[in-house]
Amino acid sequence: MLVLLFILIGTAPLMYRWHRHPTIFVITPTYSRPNQMPELVRLCTVLNTAGNVHWIVVEDAVTKNRALTRFLDDCGLPYTHLSAPTSPYKRHVRGTNQRNEALHWLRKSFQLTGQSGVVYFADDDNTYHPDLFDEMRTLKRGATWPVGMIAASNWEGCITNPNDRSKISDFWTNWEPNRKFPIDMAGFAVNLNVVLEYPNALFDDTTIGRQEGLILLRLGFKNGYELEPKADGCRKILVWHTKSANQDVQVIGPATIMNML
Amino acid sequence: MLVLLFILIGTAPLMYRWHRHPTIFVITPTYSRPNQMPELVRLCTVLNTAGNVHWIVVEDAVTKNRALTRFLDDCGLPYTHLSAPTSPYKRHVRGTNQRNEALHWLRKSFQLTGQSGVVYFADDDNTYHPDLFDEMRTLKRGATWPVGMIAASNWEGCITNPNDRSKISDFWTNWEPNRKFPIDMAGFAVNLNVVLEYPNALFDDTTIGRQEGLILLRLGFKNGYELEPKADGCRKILVWHTKSANQDVQVIGPATIMNML
Repeated sequence: MLVLLFILIGTAPLMYRWHRHPTIFVITPTYSRPNQMPELVRLCTVLNTAGNVHWIVVEDAVTKNRALTRFLDDCGLPYTHLSAPTSPYKRHVRGTNQRNEALHWLRKSFQLTGQSGVVYFADDDNTYHPDLFDEMRTLKRGATWPVGMIAASNWEGCITNPNDRSKISDFWTNWEPNRKFPIDMAGFAVNLNVVLEYPNALFDDTTIGRQEGLILLRLGFKNGYELEPKADGCRKILVWHTKSANQDVQVIGPATIMNML
Repeated sequence: MLVLLFILIGTAPLMYRWHRHPTIFVITPTYSRPNQMPELVRLCTVLNTAGNVHWIVVEDAVTKNRALTRFLDDCGLPYTHLSAPTSPYKRHVRGTNQRNEALHWLRKSFQLTGQSGVVYFADDDNTYHPDLFDEMRTLKRGATWPVGMIAASNWEGCITNPNDRSKISDFWTNWEPNRKFPIDMAGFAVNLNVVLEYPNALFDDTTIGRQEGLILLRLGFKNGYELEPKADGCRKILVWHTKSANQDVQVIGPATIMNML
């Protein structure tokens, strides 16, 4: 009995992490390339650590890759595997059709269900600290936090006043500082209810570099200051806009490996 | 009582992972650069998932960076933070002095202690699948497995015969196939006992591109075929030789962020 009690006390923090509410719906557009599998492995690892994540992976393809389905089965998270191709004329706004496909799926699946959730757009090449997901899980309507290494700067995002860490007082960005939402795709999340309240809010496939502001406007936010500051009053970097070097994979090794994407 | 029992059953697999034996001593050389923190965050995340890892982080520097010590404190793993600079004349074999410093520390700390362990050299820019650590934990003297995306090929490493998956029958590599150990630094691990049995085995700082074979020879292995094949008889890629694109960080944002390295 005493042993049981010790084990219970020891595992309580983890039990708590598994059963955290609400669910975070992580939307990840992806496409076939040499770096795809390692990048998805890293994301799978941190999403498992985050606890209570539903992963919506949307391939930029006409049909779903079966090897990717097997990879998602093995990852161990609840997931939804979708596909939506990008038009060859719209390659400059890659990701749009995939994120919209995920929004359609959320609205179709959860309208009128009362499901509580948070929606986050997480590209597969960024780097996420596990604590980021704890931060966004407590948002009311929408929240933001700083992002590391972006727009030729070491960071970008919200700043709070030392006297009131619950209000955004300023934004730092090295690129188009007059944007209403000077925020990267990795730097915000919204309540699932907001996505359901504004059923026509979608990403557009024409505007370059302002996708984040456009979707937030369409979801009813007027500007970045309406978002709740997270990550210790915007004082921590918990996500980095990393990029992988293109890998030189000219030679294909013998087909003895089973888990290739 | 019944609730306790259910919780115990539910958490048993995780309890098992935490207390896995033996300890894996993961040796990571690192140096200051914009990508350093996100890459260490990713490695911290997967090493926590692996369970029972002792992380030996060796900075390429004369003195240890205090911010890195704080980062290691927060990571939650047992760790040892060391520093050893690379000579300006030896930059072409970066990592050597740092890996040797870790080997010295292991020999100083565990000679005659009976500590069981596995030693693995894990650079901070590669990508590791959590299952990789389960594979190496069961090795007897030394083991190897394939590595993804390396030497201009999609993979490199051992091959086993379909009739006997416990013996290496061949190696695939696109670079110097006549090496006695056609193996990348990320593609092998050895028993701590072997490191202690050969106290003079160190990396050298003159030979380029054959560091892995040289250290394995000095640790008493004659060639790659003496190593135990892991990762389902060399049929799975559980580690990738990824590289991060150099980030363009010319502009330093305001000093409102606390967790910068």
